[in-house]
Amino acid sequence: MILTVTLNAALDVTYEVDGLVPNSSHRVRAVHQRAGGKGVNVARVLASLGADVLITGLIGGGAGAEIADDLSRAGIPARFGAIEGTSRRTVTVVAGDATVFNEPGPAVTAEEWRRFRGLFRELCRDARVVVLSGSLPPGLAPDAYAELTEDARAEGARVLLDADHEALRLGLAARPDIAKPNAAELARAAGPGPVEEAARRLLAAGPAAVVVSQGADGLLGVTPDGSWAVRPPRRLSGNPTGAGDAVAAALARALHSPGPFDWPSALADAAAMSAATVLSPVAGDIDPSAYRAFLQEIACPSPRPPR
Amino acid sequence: MILTVTLNAALDVTYEVDGLVPNSSHRVRAVHQRAGGKGVNVARVLASLGADVLITGLIGGGAGAEIADDLSRAGIPARFGAIEGTSRRTVTVVAGDATVFNEPGPAVTAEEWRRFRGLFRELCRDARVVVLSGSLPPGLAPDAYAELTEDARAEGARVLLDADHEALRLGLAARPDIAKPNAAELARAAGPGPVEEAARRLLAAGPAAVVVSQGADGLLGVTPDGSWAVRPPRRLSGNPTGAGDAVAAALARALHSPGPFDWPSALADAAAMSAATVLSPVAGDIDPSAYRAFLQEIACPSPRPPR
Repeated sequence: MILTVTLNAALDVTYEVDGLVPNSSHRVRAVHQRAGGKGVNVARVLASLGADVLITGLIGGGAGAEIADDLSRAGIPARFGAIEGTSRRTVTVVAGDATVFNEPGPAVTAEEWRRFRGLFRELCRDARVVVLSGSLPPGLAPDAYAELTEDARAEGARVLLDADHEALRLGLAARPDIAKPNAAELARAAGPGPVEEAARRLLAAGPAAVVVSQGADGLLGVTPDGSWAVRPPRRLSGNPTGAGDAVAAALARALHSPGPFDWPSALADAAAMSAATVLSPVAGDIDPSAYRAFLQEIACPSPRPPR
Repeated sequence: MILTVTLNAALDVTYEVDGLVPNSSHRVRAVHQRAGGKGVNVARVLASLGADVLITGLIGGGAGAEIADDLSRAGIPARFGAIEGTSRRTVTVVAGDATVFNEPGPAVTAEEWRRFRGLFRELCRDARVVVLSGSLPPGLAPDAYAELTEDARAEGARVLLDADHEALRLGLAARPDIAKPNAAELARAAGPGPVEEAARRLLAAGPAAVVVSQGADGLLGVTPDGSWAVRPPRRLSGNPTGAGDAVAAALARALHSPGPFDWPSALADAAAMSAATVLSPVAGDIDPSAYRAFLQEIACPSPRPPR
């Protein structure tokens, strides 16, 4: 089973309006909402491909109940820890363009975090892979992902970490199996410079491997044994939100497979899955036939020459 | 007791952001929320002045529960009818200026409306005045306020109607004691032309009196016996949201007082209450000392010469 963790789960709300005019009043024509947050998106991709996946994280308040209801309707299993605060909403105002408002999220108390770690360790016993992704809600210490990585490894699970800022930097020291920053997150954590050099600096901080998602420039996987680059099948236009989550989903599925980790095919799979997500208007959705078509188009990457 | 009715109750949410840039992503610095809708604002003003007030209307879903919780924390009595749909939110993005997104509100079924009318008639037995204000949620027939006006009058309560469009036009025929449009609502219901002439046309459609709120131009009260105009105490800058609700609150309190209705002092009171609301940053809040000071400043209006 693959366990995805969304500590700052969100209710993603979309408002359709006829046009966005600052400093005026707008009639919202339609309201759509669904459960979101990076770990939820990863789980949606995995579930739609038939993987055995379970969502956990923290939810609370009215928005938390709506997150749980939405996942239940979608048929994606979830076991969240409860908090007293109210889960955040993200409001995206769509008028052709998209304008996004991200609430910061609820304060989490030390006692709530202690209780969640108990639940998390219990769930890890059945998990072969744990995906830790997205921002931390207020009140959590920045080493929260480091703690969960240690818990997961103690239960024998492999860990993929997709985080930013201090949560990423501190998480690396707990030695996750894969760290998956995008190019901006990599630069923040490892400093500026050529991507492969920065990825090697990140690797030196603890993880067994680093995969950098670079949008239209594709993926770069860096391990102590070598590095591989893979490009998207073609130039795609669409919705890049969730493309990084599809990369995490593909890598988690590869970590979950028995046998040795095959970097070239895992990266090719991740590039195809990410591309198929870009074609979907909603983060976390994937077009399975586009995914299969892209898989045919992508050549397995050959190792880069050692530097 | 004064009963205020908010059929499309709202959770008013305010997002503080550093600046609003369309087609970009915003970190919300702070989220504030409280119960809203015109009838709720009327009740807030009345409660802060010590009046015996009860809120009713329709609420549902997570937002509905948050509306009820907020009123409970504020100590304002409320007895809502429950609906299956989710109450609307209004999101106001504040970055110096204010940009507002109004959700349309929940669909209300015929059965829910039937049940609400039963509750409403029960509450009317203890009400001397009923205030019907604000938009109707989807699914309600446009004559909803006409039905409630008839119910209230059958129980011996006096009725103030503050509505727009078809809900106002159809409500007038049920002969409320006061109809309180603003200038734009008046023009939509009675056609263009001088305000007093339009107000007399509205009067001919059924209500016992019409009070037009005209912002900085003050109030005009029109009855079969004469008309009175009153101007604000001085030019005010501030938040005009809720100024009309303060007018409704003052007129409801005057309807509630025993003895004959004293138009000049009721209108002076309404102008002072409205002005004191403009000085407050939040709709439904009123500064009691500003209200008392304005009351001293406003001369009681003398009757207009018959036309």
